[in-house]
Amino acid sequence: MKKALLLAKRGEKNTFPNPMVGCLITKNGKTAGYGWHERFGGPHAEINALKMAGGQAAGATMFVTLEPCSHWGKTPPCVDAIIKSGIKRVVSAMSDPNPRISGRGLKKLAMNGINITNNLLSKEAVRLNKRYINALQGGKPTVTVKAAVSLDGKIAANSGDSKWISSKASRNYVHRLRSQYDAVLVGVNTVLYDNPELTSHGKGKNPVRVIIDPSLKTPLNYNVFNDSAPTLVFYCSGSADKIFKLKNKGIALIRVPKIAGKINFKHIIKKLNILHIYKVFIEGGGETISNALNSAVVSDLMIFVSPIIIGGRSAKTAVEGPGINKIRDAIKAKNLSISRLGRDLLVRALLK
Amino acid sequence: MKKALLLAKRGEKNTFPNPMVGCLITKNGKTAGYGWHERFGGPHAEINALKMAGGQAAGATMFVTLEPCSHWGKTPPCVDAIIKSGIKRVVSAMSDPNPRISGRGLKKLAMNGINITNNLLSKEAVRLNKRYINALQGGKPTVTVKAAVSLDGKIAANSGDSKWISSKASRNYVHRLRSQYDAVLVGVNTVLYDNPELTSHGKGKNPVRVIIDPSLKTPLNYNVFNDSAPTLVFYCSGSADKIFKLKNKGIALIRVPKIAGKINFKHIIKKLNILHIYKVFIEGGGETISNALNSAVVSDLMIFVSPIIIGGRSAKTAVEGPGINKIRDAIKAKNLSISRLGRDLLVRALLK
Repeated sequence: MKKALLLAKRGEKNTFPNPMVGCLITKNGKTAGYGWHERFGGPHAEINALKMAGGQAAGATMFVTLEPCSHWGKTPPCVDAIIKSGIKRVVSAMSDPNPRISGRGLKKLAMNGINITNNLLSKEAVRLNKRYINALQGGKPTVTVKAAVSLDGKIAANSGDSKWISSKASRNYVHRLRSQYDAVLVGVNTVLYDNPELTSHGKGKNPVRVIIDPSLKTPLNYNVFNDSAPTLVFYCSGSADKIFKLKNKGIALIRVPKIAGKINFKHIIKKLNILHIYKVFIEGGGETISNALNSAVVSDLMIFVSPIIIGGRSAKTAVEGPGINKIRDAIKAKNLSISRLGRDLLVRALLK
Repeated sequence: MKKALLLAKRGEKNTFPNPMVGCLITKNGKTAGYGWHERFGGPHAEINALKMAGGQAAGATMFVTLEPCSHWGKTPPCVDAIIKSGIKRVVSAMSDPNPRISGRGLKKLAMNGINITNNLLSKEAVRLNKRYINALQGGKPTVTVKAAVSLDGKIAANSGDSKWISSKASRNYVHRLRSQYDAVLVGVNTVLYDNPELTSHGKGKNPVRVIIDPSLKTPLNYNVFNDSAPTLVFYCSGSADKIFKLKNKGIALIRVPKIAGKINFKHIIKKLNILHIYKVFIEGGGETISNALNSAVVSDLMIFVSPIIIGGRSAKTAVEGPGINKIRDAIKAKNLSISRLGRDLLVRALLK
C-alpha cells in the first residue's frame, strides 16, 4: 500500500478536482502491474494497473489507495473492469468520501466473490487527498465573483488594456485566494485580451482553470493551456481538428448547449459540481460575470477598487450583459464589508 | 441704514452668489427712492433706488449696505450712475470684500466730489452677507464631483432610470451638502432624464443651479427653472425665442464657445469664479463629469456606492467621455476615505 500511495502522489499536479489514486497489482509476491490516476478526466489508477498486468491479473491482489468506483463518471466504473479481470482480492486504503458513492464499490466487489479489505494506511490516504475530501465535505458550493475595477467601475481601458488596475498587494492576494478555490473561471474574451495564467503564482495549490469558450477561439499556445494546472473548457462548437489538438494537450472539453444565445451558468455549475468542483472563483470579464449573476448562482462578490479613474463610454465594466430598465430590478447585495489592500479598497458583499 | 439693511434682506432667496444689497435715498429728511438687489444678475440696489428717485436724486444722500461697484460685471458700474445722478453724499455700511474691488468704488465717488462715509452698521452688513464674504475669502475654488453608483459602477439603468440608486440617508446627506456649495452643476442630459430640482430640499440655503445645456434643450417648465433658487445656463446656441423666454423667467444665460466639439470646463469654472462662485458641486452625468475631470478642474470626488448590481453594457457609468487606451494614463486619486451612509458606502478621494 505504501508503494500505491507513492504512485498516487505522481498525479499531484494534474488530477484535482479528481482525487490522487495509486494502484499496485501483486501476484505471488511479485508486482504484476501498477498505475496511478495521471490527470483529471483521464483513466483511473486501477485501469492503468490492470492494463499493465494484462492476463496476470487473474487471481492477483490489488492494492488501491481509494475504494474503486462503481459509477459512470468521465470513464466506465472500475469495479466492472476489476471483476472482469479475475482479481481475487482487493485491499483499499479508504472508502470514497463522496457519500453518494461510499461503500458501493467495495460492496459490488464483495458481491462478486472478491475478497475485500479496507482502511489499510487510511490515515496516510486521507492526508494525501485532504483537498478532495474537503471539497466533498465542504457542503454547499461557493461561487465568488471577483473584479478589479477603477473608482468609476471600469475593468479595462477602451483598448482592452487592464494591466494593472489593481495594486501589487491586491494581485498577490488574488493569487493566494485562487489556491483556496477548486476552480477559477473566466470567459474567452478575458483569455484573449489578457492571456492570463490563472494560477496561484506559487502561492499555494493551483485551482482547475475553467474557460467558457463557446466556439473554441483560444489559441493552443495560450497560457491557460500550459501545464501548470488542469484546464477544463466549456464549449458549444468547434472544429474537429481543434478539439483533437486540445484533447491531445490534456485539456478536458465539455460540450454544452446554448440556450437563448448563451451558455447557461446553472448548467455549468451543475457540471462542475459533478466533477467535485464546489468552490468556483469567477474572474471575469463583464459578460461572463453578468451571465453568472443573472443565473443566480453567485454567492458572494469581491470587488477590488483601485483609486484611479479610467473613464470612457465604451470601456468595459465589471457587469455588462443586457442590463435592466428599472433600478428596482437591480440585484441586491448585503453584508458589505470593506478592507484596504495596498492603495486599493476591497469591497465584499454577499448575494445569498 | 437700518432700513437699507431690511431692504437688502428682501433679496435673500435669489441673489446669491451676488451679495444682498439694500439702498435708500433721502432728501431733506424724506425718502426719495429705495431699492434692493432683487436677483442674481439683475440690476443692483443703487440703480433700482436711483430709478425710483429720478430727478430727486440731485443733492440727495444715498444709504447703501455695500460699497457701490466701480467695475463692469453683468451690469454697468453703479458709481458712474451715482455720479451722473447728482447724489451729493454716499453712506455705506461696508467696503466690497472682494480685494480686487475693495475701496475703488468709494475712491471714485470721492474723486468726483461726493461726500463719502463708510462702515455705518458694518457689523450688521457683514452678518447679512456672511456667505458672500466667506465665498470670496475662502481662497481657492473647490470643485467636487459627486456620483451615486451601483457596486458595478452604473449611474442609471439601460432606460436612464436612476431613482433611486442611493439610500435615503445618502440623498438627505447630498441635499445638506448642496447648501455648503455656491453652486450645483449638471449637464443637460441629467436634467432631461431626471428633471431634478437641485436644491437643498429645505436642509439649508440653496446653491445656484448651473446647467450646461449647449443648445438650450431644457423645457421651460422643468424643475431647474422653478423659483426655488437662481439658475445659470451655459449654452452655445439657441433660438431667439427660447433665449427671450428664459431671460424672462429670470434665468441667467452665459454663452460660451465650443472647442473641439465641447464646452471647455476650465472656461466654465473661470466664468463662475468671476461671478463669485467658488465652491462647485458637480452632480453628473457621466459625460459632464468626464469633461470636468479631463479639464483638470476637479479637486475631489464623492462616490456614493449602493449595494446593488445594475449591469448592462450600455448602462451609463459615472465617468463616460472618450476614455483612454492605456491604464497608465488613468487619472490618479489619493487620500481615499470610506464611510457608511445607511446601506451605502461613501468613498471620498482627492484629485489634487
